[in-house]
Amino acid sequence: MQEYFQEKDLLYFTYPKGKRLFVNQEICEGVMCLLSGKIRVFSTSYNHKEITLFFLELGEFCVLSASCVLPSFELDITLEVQEKSQIALLPSQKVKALSKENTRFALKVNEIINKRLSQTLQVLTSVAFTPLQQRIKDFLLQSHQEVLYITHKELANHLGSAREAISKTLKEMKQRGEIDLQRGKIIIKNL
Amino acid sequence: MQEYFQEKDLLYFTYPKGKRLFVNQEICEGVMCLLSGKIRVFSTSYNHKEITLFFLELGEFCVLSASCVLPSFELDITLEVQEKSQIALLPSQKVKALSKENTRFALKVNEIINKRLSQTLQVLTSVAFTPLQQRIKDFLLQSHQEVLYITHKELANHLGSAREAISKTLKEMKQRGEIDLQRGKIIIKNL
Repeated sequence: MQEYFQEKDLLYFTYPKGKRLFVNQEICEGVMCLLSGKIRVFSTSYNHKEITLFFLELGEFCVLSASCVLPSFELDITLEVQEKSQIALLPSQKVKALSKENTRFALKVNEIINKRLSQTLQVLTSVAFTPLQQRIKDFLLQSHQEVLYITHKELANHLGSAREAISKTLKEMKQRGEIDLQRGKIIIKNL
Repeated sequence: MQEYFQEKDLLYFTYPKGKRLFVNQEICEGVMCLLSGKIRVFSTSYNHKEITLFFLELGEFCVLSASCVLPSFELDITLEVQEKSQIALLPSQKVKALSKENTRFALKVNEIINKRLSQTLQVLTSVAFTPLQQRIKDFLLQSHQEVLYITHKELANHLGSAREAISKTLKEMKQRGEIDLQRGKIIIKNL
């Protein structure tokens, strides 16, 4: 995407761990690129349950934060800074101008949104069709870690489930010897 | 969208009720426009469960069927003709050429995909966060009909649920006097 604008068009920000950006309510700053750190993108329910849609990849451009300048874009999502993160921002005004002037830029934005649609559809089919136990297993295996530092509540928020259901399922998995549980930790044994 | 191409660019097809088109496997024909009838767009699981993503609106263009010419578009969805339907098709080759030549066309495609992303996210949050009984209620109320001709299996396929769960919940709703149930029919009484 870098070929469409100049270095001087970008603004740089550093966000602390825990910072939340509310797309469509608070921010419409522009297209952001994650330079370092970790940012989770999720959707929330009226009763404060959460479900992760995707994580921004390093060097990846996120068009969601420019939603106000994209036509018919009605999303209510939150970006959560999970580790101190640095971003480069292409401001909304510049995004708007480039979209109108440059077909290849418009197609690039198009490509990014297509990817988000594919990812959201994957999460949807997982929630609708895959039993919770399998979804927990998939999450643990995809982390490629032997020890995960995550609370049951955080895992519930990731999978769009209730804390109670997560704890019950983890306990069953522990009884089968698949994992071990310690405060704030899940140790993978034999998945 | 009509301003971007000429009448002679379009092909016309009529599909019978029950016809299914498998996007990404069988067809990549182009951008289609529903002229008459009713087409449901849904996603399926490995074990043949289904969940409705949206219905095409009359006169609305559907870019999903041109997924092969859109970048990073990886979807596995099915279009089901629910009533005999007539469509106008802008062939893939033409879509590809227009996307490259015309910024406004590219932005229009962009707009349609944004809408699909919003709709998919709505279905996702509904599945993840809303209890099945409320989702059935919402479906019945949104139909704006007093009598719905729909089987429990069809309702399950619409909501991405199991037939057994739907039947159990409908029975509870009947016991509370909210609906009445007859073979292949749901009669709304006091929702």
